[in-house]
Amino acid sequence: MGMTDPIADMLTRLRNANSVLHDKVEIPGSKIKQAIAEVLKEEGFIKDFSFAEDNKQGVITINLKYGPNREQVITGIKRISKPGLRAYAKKDQLPRVLGGLGIAIISTSKGIMSDKQARREGVGGEVLAYVW
Amino acid sequence: MGMTDPIADMLTRLRNANSVLHDKVEIPGSKIKQAIAEVLKEEGFIKDFSFAEDNKQGVITINLKYGPNREQVITGIKRISKPGLRAYAKKDQLPRVLGGLGIAIISTSKGIMSDKQARREGVGGEVLAYVW
Repeated sequence: MGMTDPIADMLTRLRNANSVLHDKVEIPGSKIKQAIAEVLKEEGFIKDFSFAEDNKQGVITINLKYGPNREQVITGIKRISKPGLRAYAKKDQLPRVLGGLGIAIISTSKGIMSDKQARREGVGGEVLAYVW
Repeated sequence: MGMTDPIADMLTRLRNANSVLHDKVEIPGSKIKQAIAEVLKEEGFIKDFSFAEDNKQGVITINLKYGPNREQVITGIKRISKPGLRAYAKKDQLPRVLGGLGIAIISTSKGIMSDKQARREGVGGEVLAYVW
């Protein structure tokens, strides 16, 4: 099945699983989506993720993270750049999400990373999403 | 009683009442806090507010707003400028909160208004808070 926006699909699956407090969610695999999961893990928004081969594109399993009273760690997810309207930020104009409370996920020439990492690396790129 | 940061106090009362789904919350009055309540009303984050005189500073009553299934309309509030560390934005560098999903409340020379209004008016100012 062709999909117009596989990243939007990933974010929707995450958002939905998180809103009903599921422990894990499975997502059709891709390198970009694995890299996004890696950023979410590094920035403390998910517990972990794994990748399993199948006879197609493989499956990413994301283990969601909750607080001690099962409060959500992820409180919002927003797709920013879209297939029909790409959004880019230069290195000195990287977005800050809620004054640093959240992150922007940026696709840069040095890989996919958070806005904080991109600022350290001195690179701009495509603003894939905000997570907070 | 002296208070270090009456705006932070207002935002905390709002945040707390909203988190436990109260219909209204009372806040010690001031002109600035009334102006902030006005912005929240204009931008659709609260239903309404009123001011009642007493023999001191008066009381603002805010009527909170919820969705059809009692989901919160306000999902987050963050104080930005603080008495010890003021934050200002020029008219061409007004913050965007979650790509327009939220608002920044700006204290400008033309009054207290949302970042959207400030952009229309072409004024910068002190960034009091983010609401989303």
